[in-house]
Amino acid sequence: MSTMVLLDDDQLSPEAAAVFADIRAVRGTDFVNNFWRALAHDPVALKRTWESIKQVMAPGALDPLTKEMIYVAVSIANSCEYCIRSHSAAARAKGMTDAQFMELVAVVGMASETNRLATGLQVPVDEAFRAP
Amino acid sequence: MSTMVLLDDDQLSPEAAAVFADIRAVRGTDFVNNFWRALAHDPVALKRTWESIKQVMAPGALDPLTKEMIYVAVSIANSCEYCIRSHSAAARAKGMTDAQFMELVAVVGMASETNRLATGLQVPVDEAFRAP
Amino acid sequence: MSTMVLLDDDQLSPEAAAVFADIRAVRGTDFVNNFWRALAHDPVALKRTWESIKQVMAPGALDPLTKEMIYVAVSIANSCEYCIRSHSAAARAKGMTDAQFMELVAVVGMASETNRLATGLQVPVDEAFRAP
Amino acid sequence: MSTMVLLDDDQLSPEAAAVFADIRAVRGTDFVNNFWRALAHDPVALKRTWESIKQVMAPGALDPLTKEMIYVAVSIANSCEYCIRSHSAAARAKGMTDAQFMELVAVVGMASETNRLATGLQVPVDEAFRAP
Amino acid sequence: MSTMVLLDDDQLSPEAAAVFADIRAVRGTDFVNNFWRALAHDPVALKRTWESIKQVMAPGALDPLTKEMIYVAVSIANSCEYCIRSHSAAARAKGMTDAQFMELVAVVGMASETNRLATGLQVPVDEAFRAP
Amino acid sequence: MSTMVLLDDDQLSPEAAAVFADIRAVRGTDFVNNFWRALAHDPVALKRTWESIKQVMAPGALDPLTKEMIYVAVSIANSCEYCIRSHSAAARAKGMTDAQFMELVAVVGMASETNRLATGLQVPVDEAFRAP
Repeated sequence: MSTMVLLDDDQLSPEAAAVFADIRAVRGTDFVNNFWRALAHDPVALKRTWESIKQVMAPGALDPLTKEMIYVAVSIANSCEYCIRSHSAAARAKGMTDAQFMELVAVVGMASETNRLATGLQVPVDEAFRAP
Repeated sequence: MSTMVLLDDDQLSPEAAAVFADIRAVRGTDFVNNFWRALAHDPVALKRTWESIKQVMAPGALDPLTKEMIYVAVSIANSCEYCIRSHSAAARAKGMTDAQFMELVAVVGMASETNRLATGLQVPVDEAFRAP
Repeated sequence: MSTMVLLDDDQLSPEAAAVFADIRAVRGTDFVNNFWRALAHDPVALKRTWESIKQVMAPGALDPLTKEMIYVAVSIANSCEYCIRSHSAAARAKGMTDAQFMELVAVVGMASETNRLATGLQVPVDEAFRAP
Repeated sequence: MSTMVLLDDDQLSPEAAAVFADIRAVRGTDFVNNFWRALAHDPVALKRTWESIKQVMAPGALDPLTKEMIYVAVSIANSCEYCIRSHSAAARAKGMTDAQFMELVAVVGMASETNRLATGLQVPVDEAFRAP
Repeated sequence: MSTMVLLDDDQLSPEAAAVFADIRAVRGTDFVNNFWRALAHDPVALKRTWESIKQVMAPGALDPLTKEMIYVAVSIANSCEYCIRSHSAAARAKGMTDAQFMELVAVVGMASETNRLATGLQVPVDEAFRAP
Repeated sequence: MSTMVLLDDDQLSPEAAAVFADIRAVRGTDFVNNFWRALAHDPVALKRTWESIKQVMAPGALDPLTKEMIYVAVSIANSCEYCIRSHSAAARAKGMTDAQFMELVAVVGMASETNRLATGLQVPVDEAFRAP
């Protein structure tokens, strides 16, 4: 059970309902997942978060699938089950295969290992890596 | 200063020297960065880590640049400065542009925000996201 | 199921029972939550933790509700479900409203986003922020 | 040194310059800190982040100082030095005293300790804490 | 439910089956836990991870029980329930008592508290602690 | 520079001075490291933290060196440089060798890798690991 009641469509404020309508239009499905139903208690936060995600995840210098896989990787590093599952589903919907997912997880694991080695050994940054 | 002295080439055990030789051959440069010079105190760990990284980061279902960007993203999530800087350099060497890096950072930021929203609200996983 | 059996009142050592009695007296309720029932296997740790919490959470330069909300915020950042739920309940008992909780979560999310932006960009600390 | 060059005022795109002008107007000072100078490489992210922070940190159900202290607490939990220092400075500008800061740090420490105790012992959530 | 289907013995590739056989031989039991059944989708990662764990956890300068307890401590700090439970079981199989586990958890909690105090106060490293 | 001025001996309150005297007596050295000099702004927190550390780190079911190494491992996982360096120094003073430190770091790295693999794959806990 969530810490705030998940809101059904008929419990939404007009501002929240407008965001839900946009989520449905953009995604081309009637399904609105629980994340938005919890966040809908704060329609301003709901709108801000949805607008930000649309902007950040839009195609740009990186393609949407790459962005979605980075999203999953960060969610693993942050131990957020909901985010791992929902963004894995999104990545699969954008074409991620089982083999790609397994490699993604392997990279996250390897990065986490060497992150701790570098931190434990307090390795100083090489001059070659300092220039922006 | 690192927690273990960084080893110069002439301080390496034969096992560590062999790994350094392979690093140089694979990368096509004489430069060996500090991470390996700290890890060289444990030649078995040095060899295992280098062999693992070669395997994990090789082209497969994901291309090397995508893997490198996932590596950077995880390093940001884990707050490892050394890893952010060294793998950003590696990603740039593989073609990452400024615009791609800025988008990568934006995705990491957005994922971290919604990770905490989902965790704070304890959003239950939708059934639609449960099937593997 | 916890990694240590939760102790019932009749399974407590005298030292643990004394701490439980103080928890009940201070809180004005017979209910002792599971956290203390797991920790009761180590009566010294039980007593130290309870005494520390009483001291840290007492009114001082910050009021108890503000402290409780900081506690919830840190628990979200640390991904501790038990702590999010138990300290949210404590905060609500001290007067936290739904609107306050939603804002708290929004601040945690925003901070987590900009934390990662600052880390990813490795922003150097401005001189203006260095003086204690 | 940051991973992207910090931009001076005369290096800004018109969109970034407009955000800097608003930062100066809202804060009533000519000083623009390094965070924004790094982020200015992506004017869209710059604008989105600034607008979000203004919205999230505005007075609402929580007062601005409480929000700022939650921001500092999360930044400590996330090990972001830049964020600890910049938001501590912001909190002090809004009235945070030394005694309040010391108590804030103590609460963050205590929460981090009990978070790990609850996680290590895998304490199950009490029914009493489940209702939203 | 895992994000990848757990593989039964009769669904394994020959490479994965060979690793499972070695796990059984080394551990002297027919039981192969779920971690390996999920990882088996990527036989190369499966083999690399198993070989690495055998190497890292073998007796060396540290005895196997001490290593297993460090493993549990890190898993608590990383909020990984699966890892806490599986490596606590492994530590108990190697002789960890209830009292040792309770002390381990207490040290993890205390370290997490003082880690945040040191980070929040941004304590500079004493010169005495700098020499490797 | 710390976020609070480090206090010299002649700036201490009588309560803080008493704690410093005990630190010196217990450790058998006049040296008091910076952590305590920052924390001394809050003599109650100073005393509580020192008493807790003495209690948690005392010989018990685990020997002091094992506890100190767990402390270092957690500090690596929490990315706290001060804590890594100060507790590594303490562990070395209690007999930790270079080889032991290198193995400790390797275990922390391996645990962090498999923690992320288990989290990314959302491996369900085996029944065999559930009994306390």
